[in-house]
Amino acid sequence: MVVVRARSYCSSANLGSGFDVVAVALDAYYDEVEVEVIRRGSGRVVLEGVQGVFSELVDVNVNTAIAAAEELLKFTGRDDVDVRVRLWKGIPPSAGLGGSGASAIATIKALTSALDVELSHNEIIEIAGRAEAVVAGEPHYDNVSASLMGGLVFILSLNPINVVRFNVYANFVVATPMVRMPPNKTAIMRGVLPKQVELREVVRNYSKLVALVAGFLSGNFRMAGYGMEDYIVEPARAAYIPCYEAVKRAALTNGAYGLAISGAGPSLLALCEDEEVARRVLSAVKASYREHGVEALVKVAHTGPAAEVLTIT
Amino acid sequence: MVVVRARSYCSSANLGSGFDVVAVALDAYYDEVEVEVIRRGSGRVVLEGVQGVFSELVDVNVNTAIAAAEELLKFTGRDDVDVRVRLWKGIPPSAGLGGSGASAIATIKALTSALDVELSHNEIIEIAGRAEAVVAGEPHYDNVSASLMGGLVFILSLNPINVVRFNVYANFVVATPMVRMPPNKTAIMRGVLPKQVELREVVRNYSKLVALVAGFLSGNFRMAGYGMEDYIVEPARAAYIPCYEAVKRAALTNGAYGLAISGAGPSLLALCEDEEVARRVLSAVKASYREHGVEALVKVAHTGPAAEVLTIT
Repeated sequence: MVVVRARSYCSSANLGSGFDVVAVALDAYYDEVEVEVIRRGSGRVVLEGVQGVFSELVDVNVNTAIAAAEELLKFTGRDDVDVRVRLWKGIPPSAGLGGSGASAIATIKALTSALDVELSHNEIIEIAGRAEAVVAGEPHYDNVSASLMGGLVFILSLNPINVVRFNVYANFVVATPMVRMPPNKTAIMRGVLPKQVELREVVRNYSKLVALVAGFLSGNFRMAGYGMEDYIVEPARAAYIPCYEAVKRAALTNGAYGLAISGAGPSLLALCEDEEVARRVLSAVKASYREHGVEALVKVAHTGPAAEVLTIT
Repeated sequence: MVVVRARSYCSSANLGSGFDVVAVALDAYYDEVEVEVIRRGSGRVVLEGVQGVFSELVDVNVNTAIAAAEELLKFTGRDDVDVRVRLWKGIPPSAGLGGSGASAIATIKALTSALDVELSHNEIIEIAGRAEAVVAGEPHYDNVSASLMGGLVFILSLNPINVVRFNVYANFVVATPMVRMPPNKTAIMRGVLPKQVELREVVRNYSKLVALVAGFLSGNFRMAGYGMEDYIVEPARAAYIPCYEAVKRAALTNGAYGLAISGAGPSLLALCEDEEVARRVLSAVKASYREHGVEALVKVAHTGPAAEVLTIT
């Protein structure tokens, strides 16, 4: 019997113009997963317990931690063991912060260590993506990539999976309104998107995406923040995000360089030059939610580290 | 009477996925312009002569050198002088190498020096863009920006003009089939583009554009070359480019990381790891055109320098 505990951080996908392609790990929240491998089993995975700040919001029946463990056993052909999973949920669920992806990644980190198998990043991303598909309907690789590798990640290709990671350190404010979202939120938020886009609009967005990438890679956060604007996805979704306009105005007038919906929302992500600006933006954003009577978690955050194994016993 | 001579290099816009947003200056070819400012004039601009390798292909009636000088006199309010312009045309015209933009930039560089006026890069780009509009129907800022500043440029916004430049040194092969293009080539090549694009295709292109930018900025030319693929503009135009498929295959199988149509064509631009690979690609590309009976200029090139004043007399 081996018990391994691993931690994986939350993440923010899209960053405005980088829809489905850009994501960043954030040190604001994390999940931890403990796996216990029992020899002479039959490939069964059991969720033994959910703890942590947000445990009561976790759906124990469709959970990516379980799905990830099952997919990993399948991938490695290990039907000779059973796995017990204990999840500590520190990431607000259904918040657009990649919580389900982080659970999957923490599980795979812990379980690969417990089973002593070596997988490439791309293999782990593929397995975690499949686990997300079990729960969310289709695989998304942006959040799981960021949670696995930390830093800023770009999805360069899906088939085969090709993800690159850059070591960017940046200051953010992460704002999460505590509103109840429908369980099929991601599907709904994809449904509101236009199917067709004018080429002219695409080119406008290219400029933003180039600013986003070039800004982060050259340490010019003003440029990166400018690139967080988006003309295609964000306008279609903004109406569904509580206090979007008010919070955006509060953040930008208080020095944030840019603000975007985190994933499919309802969280918002603001980019700031440094922690001093971030603290000022934090206060303004908090005040804005309060003014509108919306309960919200607001935190200063930085680019998050890679997922890591904490203890092996 | 002051005489100033300036030089400006050719450039390649788009680089595949960076349609209308990314451009690079190239040291393959350049134009030179000599301006002579005559006091006590009335704001008249005269093209005194065209020399150089490609002088016989230059349309002296609609020329961006003239238009640029006129726009600059207008911008600075200098209707008290006349200007004589002598153009040395080293860039193949109508080849998709930004030749008209380079003529405009060389003229403005020479004339601002002769008139002793200081303009910002963005002002020069705006004036050169207007000169291009006089000749081509609408302003394009990508080629003129690259010719002005050298290196790799990104158009971050058009209104107001916001262009950034990165100091990238890369190895290319530039291939220019010597075919006669219709005078309204750029308009025709815009006409073949789709007006609407599926969001799914846009996201595929985002991945490429991110690879293009991140690759160049991190010195990973393999990644940049991967990002030179384009799913929207390039497929629509490829059929109009002589030997597109054959030359692309020849370049890629001989080690080029990527190949794209230069601007609206018919030139093609291949990115290589180093000059050794570029020489190999050069031979293969030359052979491919020869095989198809197409006369072509093929050169190894590098990222080009900024426009510069050569002599003041």
